[in-house]
Amino acid sequence: MSVYNFSAGPGVMPVEVTNQIQRDLPSYKDSGMSVMEISHRSSLYTELELEAEQDLRDLMKISDDYAVLFLQGGGTLQFTSVPLNLATHYHKAVYLNSGYFSKKAIEAANRIDELTVQVIENSDPTSKLPKIDGHIDNVDYVYLTTNNTIEGTAYHQIPKFDQSLVVDMSSNILAEPYNVNDFDLIFAGAQKNIGPAGMTVVIVKRDKLVKQQLLSDVMDYRIEDNKHSAFNTPPVFNTYAAGLTFKWLKKMGGVEAIYQQNLEQADMLYDFIDNSKVFNNDVPAAERSITNAVFKTASSELDQEFINQAAAHGLVNLGGHRLVGGMRASLYNAMPTDGVVKLIDELKQFEVTHGGK
Amino acid sequence: MSVYNFSAGPGVMPVEVTNQIQRDLPSYKDSGMSVMEISHRSSLYTELELEAEQDLRDLMKISDDYAVLFLQGGGTLQFTSVPLNLATHYHKAVYLNSGYFSKKAIEAANRIDELTVQVIENSDPTSKLPKIDGHIDNVDYVYLTTNNTIEGTAYHQIPKFDQSLVVDMSSNILAEPYNVNDFDLIFAGAQKNIGPAGMTVVIVKRDKLVKQQLLSDVMDYRIEDNKHSAFNTPPVFNTYAAGLTFKWLKKMGGVEAIYQQNLEQADMLYDFIDNSKVFNNDVPAAERSITNAVFKTASSELDQEFINQAAAHGLVNLGGHRLVGGMRASLYNAMPTDGVVKLIDELKQFEVTHGGK
Repeated sequence: MSVYNFSAGPGVMPVEVTNQIQRDLPSYKDSGMSVMEISHRSSLYTELELEAEQDLRDLMKISDDYAVLFLQGGGTLQFTSVPLNLATHYHKAVYLNSGYFSKKAIEAANRIDELTVQVIENSDPTSKLPKIDGHIDNVDYVYLTTNNTIEGTAYHQIPKFDQSLVVDMSSNILAEPYNVNDFDLIFAGAQKNIGPAGMTVVIVKRDKLVKQQLLSDVMDYRIEDNKHSAFNTPPVFNTYAAGLTFKWLKKMGGVEAIYQQNLEQADMLYDFIDNSKVFNNDVPAAERSITNAVFKTASSELDQEFINQAAAHGLVNLGGHRLVGGMRASLYNAMPTDGVVKLIDELKQFEVTHGGK
Repeated sequence: MSVYNFSAGPGVMPVEVTNQIQRDLPSYKDSGMSVMEISHRSSLYTELELEAEQDLRDLMKISDDYAVLFLQGGGTLQFTSVPLNLATHYHKAVYLNSGYFSKKAIEAANRIDELTVQVIENSDPTSKLPKIDGHIDNVDYVYLTTNNTIEGTAYHQIPKFDQSLVVDMSSNILAEPYNVNDFDLIFAGAQKNIGPAGMTVVIVKRDKLVKQQLLSDVMDYRIEDNKHSAFNTPPVFNTYAAGLTFKWLKKMGGVEAIYQQNLEQADMLYDFIDNSKVFNNDVPAAERSITNAVFKTASSELDQEFINQAAAHGLVNLGGHRLVGGMRASLYNAMPTDGVVKLIDELKQFEVTHGGK
């Protein structure tokens, strides 16, 4: 059965990439070894890593002022590594609390003894996203989550600060264009727009990294930068698969081209929802995520009925996060437009049989 | 070209496992999704994880007194996580310094402020491995590395202590039989005998874990145990591939059966080396690793000549670690006996043309 996979992550990957992995599997570059079996000290791996890094630099226009790292431990470990690496001067950071994963980051930062964490909550009833008014003195960085996977919201415009800005871009990296130079650090788990779970991209301005001894060297961006992310054995297969996705995206026309497709898909879906008598989304239009569209019916029973019915028709993983319920359609880069068309057909059909016009 | 891969890790995997991965790749269990694309909250993943865990429990005879965890960050992160989780009572641990990776573990433990680390060095000129004589009071654990990948040594018999024993078993887990009940904690990076790099197995006695708040939840074995290693997004593909290797090993007859094969292979190789006029190994017989055989000629130039010549004949990754030079043949579970036969042929040939009899 062929399905459309709307999972929030691990999620859909480009079929060209999974096909390539399948073809490469017995013998990587005619080495007689699978890519899973090559030594991380071999030139085969070094070339693979450098190529993936360069392709990501090309896609996001990342200058040599920044290190590009491929690390383990997920976004969750970065919640700790980020303050350890960057909060070294004022020992103070400001966090915009925009949802579940921001809260997780705040909780991790709060565990660091010497760090003062200032949290900005949203106070505008017409908005879902906290904002900063003006300048905050003497902080090492301001932290925000560009796209809130669970809440279906996103900062499409990055506020201009003169402070250092750190972003968790896990769920919309490479899906919409951001200017890397606006940030001192970007991190993103691979499992949404990059590749299989188990690798996390960190893009960090090199001159922000100071020499220090952290609790673990694998959390130390300076060390990982010096070792091209191979201070210890890196997740070779995961970086390889990410590299294939970068090449696929370049072939698709890059971030700007995929952004147009993502925007078109999201607009189609939100348009339908806004005109629906059964489904609704309460996020202000300007703050809606284009990678994670959340919506609900009037009851959780009806939500579940829709999720089950859609799954029976090959539209899978449409359930919302357990904390918020409802539905969530994750429209990552690898989602074909046909999947969104089929989803809207399914929604229409459900509406006809459930009291809509 | 078909090759024999003697890499110390990432290293050779069973060809049956890479074939199975290739077959499964487009659609895992007829889901219409690659295993890389399935949600870690789906029953597909939960079943995969539980099955891998149960198969490892069967292979190593691990009782429910122990948690079996599949984590990220490599052995290197465990160097820090182990003392954070276990050195909670006396805040003291004893480390047997048996080589490169023991030193790394000691260095990581020394960074933990409240921890006193006592290091035991080897003082016996007839041995390569430090030992403990008698009992040491008031320590949270004694730490050793069962197999020293770089030095080619191993503790085949585990000394009986009445203290808690922690072992880094990265390079000989599942390759020779150990009694799990002798240990309070075992950890092992996957990339030698388990599967692709990017996943680390931790086996830990549950009653040794106390409730506490660690710097990062991903380092907290209690939390990971409660969440079946999916506190945050786990490395799904890596755990899946490890699970296939566990099934392969069960089919091969389990640890005892593969141990006989490993022993036979290692004996063949060491026998040749011991009778060689060109190659030599200076590890006492009882302390020789069966997974990593190290040997040298009289000069590093000759070593390099052999390494290059062997590689040209499809026997690849025979170079020793940069710190010790010489050669290293890693004979992990997936190395076919034919590979060792071919290696010995190559050594013989080299001996004939380089001054041997």
